[in-house]
Amino acid sequence: MAFKSDIEIAREANKKPIQEIGDRLGIPTEHLLPYGHDKAKISQPFIDSVQDRKDGKLILVTAINPTPAGEGKTTTTVGLGDGLNKIGKNAMICIREASLGPNFGMKGGAAGGGKAQVVPMEDMNLHFTGDFHAITSAHSLLSAMIDNHIYWGNECDIDLRRVAWRRVVDMNDRALRNVALSLGGVANGFPREGGFDITVASEVMAILCLAKNLKDLEQRLGDMIVAYRRDKSPVFCRDIKAEGAMTVLLKDAMQPNLVQTLENNPAFVHGGPFANIAHGCNSVIATSTALKLADYVVTEAGFGADLGAEKFMDIKCRKAGLRPDAVVIVATVRAMKMNGGVAKADLGAENVQAVKDGCPNLGRHIENMKKFGVPAVVGINHFVTDTDAEVQAVMDFCASLGVEAILNKHWEFGGEGITETAKKVVELCESGEADYHPLYGDDMSLADKIETVCKEIYRADSVVMDNKIRAQLKDWEDQGYGHLPVCLAKTQYSFTTDPTMRGAPTGFDIPVREVRISAGAGFIVVVCGEIMTMPGLPRTPAAESIHLNEDGLIEGLF
Amino acid sequence: MAFKSDIEIAREANKKPIQEIGDRLGIPTEHLLPYGHDKAKISQPFIDSVQDRKDGKLILVTAINPTPAGEGKTTTTVGLGDGLNKIGKNAMICIREASLGPNFGMKGGAAGGGKAQVVPMEDMNLHFTGDFHAITSAHSLLSAMIDNHIYWGNECDIDLRRVAWRRVVDMNDRALRNVALSLGGVANGFPREGGFDITVASEVMAILCLAKNLKDLEQRLGDMIVAYRRDKSPVFCRDIKAEGAMTVLLKDAMQPNLVQTLENNPAFVHGGPFANIAHGCNSVIATSTALKLADYVVTEAGFGADLGAEKFMDIKCRKAGLRPDAVVIVATVRAMKMNGGVAKADLGAENVQAVKDGCPNLGRHIENMKKFGVPAVVGINHFVTDTDAEVQAVMDFCASLGVEAILNKHWEFGGEGITETAKKVVELCESGEADYHPLYGDDMSLADKIETVCKEIYRADSVVMDNKIRAQLKDWEDQGYGHLPVCLAKTQYSFTTDPTMRGAPTGFDIPVREVRISAGAGFIVVVCGEIMTMPGLPRTPAAESIHLNEDGLIEGLF
Repeated sequence: MAFKSDIEIAREANKKPIQEIGDRLGIPTEHLLPYGHDKAKISQPFIDSVQDRKDGKLILVTAINPTPAGEGKTTTTVGLGDGLNKIGKNAMICIREASLGPNFGMKGGAAGGGKAQVVPMEDMNLHFTGDFHAITSAHSLLSAMIDNHIYWGNECDIDLRRVAWRRVVDMNDRALRNVALSLGGVANGFPREGGFDITVASEVMAILCLAKNLKDLEQRLGDMIVAYRRDKSPVFCRDIKAEGAMTVLLKDAMQPNLVQTLENNPAFVHGGPFANIAHGCNSVIATSTALKLADYVVTEAGFGADLGAEKFMDIKCRKAGLRPDAVVIVATVRAMKMNGGVAKADLGAENVQAVKDGCPNLGRHIENMKKFGVPAVVGINHFVTDTDAEVQAVMDFCASLGVEAILNKHWEFGGEGITETAKKVVELCESGEADYHPLYGDDMSLADKIETVCKEIYRADSVVMDNKIRAQLKDWEDQGYGHLPVCLAKTQYSFTTDPTMRGAPTGFDIPVREVRISAGAGFIVVVCGEIMTMPGLPRTPAAESIHLNEDGLIEGLF
Repeated sequence: MAFKSDIEIAREANKKPIQEIGDRLGIPTEHLLPYGHDKAKISQPFIDSVQDRKDGKLILVTAINPTPAGEGKTTTTVGLGDGLNKIGKNAMICIREASLGPNFGMKGGAAGGGKAQVVPMEDMNLHFTGDFHAITSAHSLLSAMIDNHIYWGNECDIDLRRVAWRRVVDMNDRALRNVALSLGGVANGFPREGGFDITVASEVMAILCLAKNLKDLEQRLGDMIVAYRRDKSPVFCRDIKAEGAMTVLLKDAMQPNLVQTLENNPAFVHGGPFANIAHGCNSVIATSTALKLADYVVTEAGFGADLGAEKFMDIKCRKAGLRPDAVVIVATVRAMKMNGGVAKADLGAENVQAVKDGCPNLGRHIENMKKFGVPAVVGINHFVTDTDAEVQAVMDFCASLGVEAILNKHWEFGGEGITETAKKVVELCESGEADYHPLYGDDMSLADKIETVCKEIYRADSVVMDNKIRAQLKDWEDQGYGHLPVCLAKTQYSFTTDPTMRGAPTGFDIPVREVRISAGAGFIVVVCGEIMTMPGLPRTPAAESIHLNEDGLIEGLF
């Protein structure tokens, strides 16, 4: 049986004019700002006008630790949104935007897959509505203003060696990771070391995704620490007077983007912070606006539940006052087998024992979700090679933990293939069972917050932090940052910091290599292991074969 | 008498939905791609579909050498478009897009002024429809691919010291003018010197503005020289295999942007190459499409007629097969007085003699336009301080050269204030008088082309080029680039290379400092004097006071 590719299915989509999708959400024409005929932004005045409405129910889709087998978290998010509409509910989805640069390294990521996709897929993987370009511009303006400040006399007394603000570009460009700036003589400034990250790693991105409105955005931008003086006191973005102009550059980007699923259901695609050094969720403004427009809102968080769901709960929900009603944990039989020790090449053969051996990874994520007080259901994303016995093994395992696991076939059948999970999600949402609370309180010490995540979520025996790091955390507490949540950056492939340790490892420590403060976004970044904030291109980048064909269609991007 | 500011007038504009403007041009809804409700792009298939139509008449608006007094070239372009519509003609205008970065240094430039403006002014000075961001992305992709090529083995044998491709960013960031790249160890590549220009200086921008269609765009991108080997042989963009992916990134940016004047007449605002190291005109695709949609198309070129009009005629028209029918040379009484030696502070007082003394600057531009075979009229852009005697002095001077000069009041009255010039332009267009030809033929040697422009247009006694430069020109001729036109980069303030030499100087030489090749855009850049391709921010950048006010309106940008 030959399946069509994602891009083939996306191109055959029977898209409705975006105004029709907006009509369904009750957005008047003047408040729906079209970008072509299949994308639109929602105006700020309209968003302001719906603030008094009652919130719908919020459902988080998360997953086991990712494996090369693929889990289908976004596919499930899109499918579940369609499934909820299919059973007669007024539902919409909220997902992240894709970063442009990486698509030219490896082939681009779709927004979902099979019959569960958001369209227009090509635009969403290219410039889309320009949000990331606006973020790059705002970030670059501040970069230029910092060096300009130094150039014209350095009134703020910035220590050239302690400029914390790196530049960004939305391209995989390893040559920019470490650069020497301001060379070439007096007219070009004071030479110093610097470097570039990819745009999604910008604190501006994290702020855009956490800000409640434009005023909050400007406040947070002003709060960012951009450099330190020789006495190590911080210099803020506000001291450089950049936050007003940055807000002007970001005012359109703050408006959520409306697109549609293949089944013509509404989807907000907005924001896309890194899921390691940032919190990895779509924007608060998109999610909170969706909750005013739909009865059920399905969203997702980056990576597995140890990183993504934890940050969704402890950073996004805590800060935005969101209270999730249900969690769907995505797993696949194939990924269970990899967690059970099977190599990728051998995934095709039935292996019930390996499925059983891999299930503890899923089990730990199930237990973790309970710690946030939100009821969960497991969504098994069906692959055609799965056998009944393998699927049953996952279901039996989940049942032993008191959680239902349901087989979903949205990839093949769209919303129709996931109605059972949709009904279960409605049941969980309406049960009143949810009693969301973050894992730790605001007033716990920063070191204890780190320890709590590492022990409660990752199940580490201990956290290894040297005195310098502990002193830094203490300094931040003294400066009034002690109430911030922590944002751990570690590999997404394992509960540990070793990406090869699948399953549910025990008997390990989490070493903290470095801590950073994102004072505007409002979290402490805790770096555990190697984190790459500027990817490189591979030997043969996808860009080499990307082109427009004779029909004007894009080849090689997917 | 208190006049409203440009931004106040723009904000009070009675804009029509952009679809109505498109309707007037006969663009079907599905081919008009809206960006919000007041901007749109025109689809490529629609552009293809009108290619067999007859062309309208093409009118170039140019000016005397700019002075701090302000000439109002764009204001006249917009006003003349409105004036032509006012007298019952089907007319549209084509102007350039603004660069984002410089607006954060000095206050932003409007698109016209007074009652002769294009709207939405704020969007046009910020992200607009994202064209410049797309150019930055395409440029940055090639930048990353070049260093990636070197990193993975340097199959093309690029000499690290001879990478000609600089990076770009659309921000005034002097710290990036000269940088050392790829520092920090083996994983980051081979250290080398590099630097950034502002996006409008990118050859990609020049190419986007000269390409006839997407196929031509891809071809020209591939033709760009990005580096040289140790034997000085060129390495092309094509060798790096970047042109296909760059074209994909630029496919939307290639579509002209439709907006409207304050009088609801259609305007294409598309492209914006530098007018020194590039040709300084809006895109060929916008101009040639406008000629299919309107009977009269009014366009402009950067700086004064010595740089802008010369390049419009010798580069844009030559390459695109455009045949202009009339030229309007903009002058003001105030600028004539400055050319006649009056300081800016003293411009308020009547000074007929100074007007007469300054007129030779205008006279030389009038003579120059005749050399291209296109009939001209002088448009005097009225200022309220002008006296009748001063205006008459300009008119008398022009009459002595056999050219009519007409007083225009479009700034105060819109199209109604410039109908006399509009009628004169129609008369010139319909007279059949125009017999456009470039200043020099394709087969003249490159050195002779440079000499021809310097002597015929600038009136220099001679061109000073050392042997190294002459040898380089000869090399390019041997490599098959001898047929290219030349693009001179010098100060816009004078016919000479000394910006303080106003009026119509004689007895000077033009020293050529450097020559470069833009093999994709298709011209030889001849640098005469200091040319800045990456501006810096001033001591107190405009950005410091730009912000959103309580009503969500932008303050400080204009």
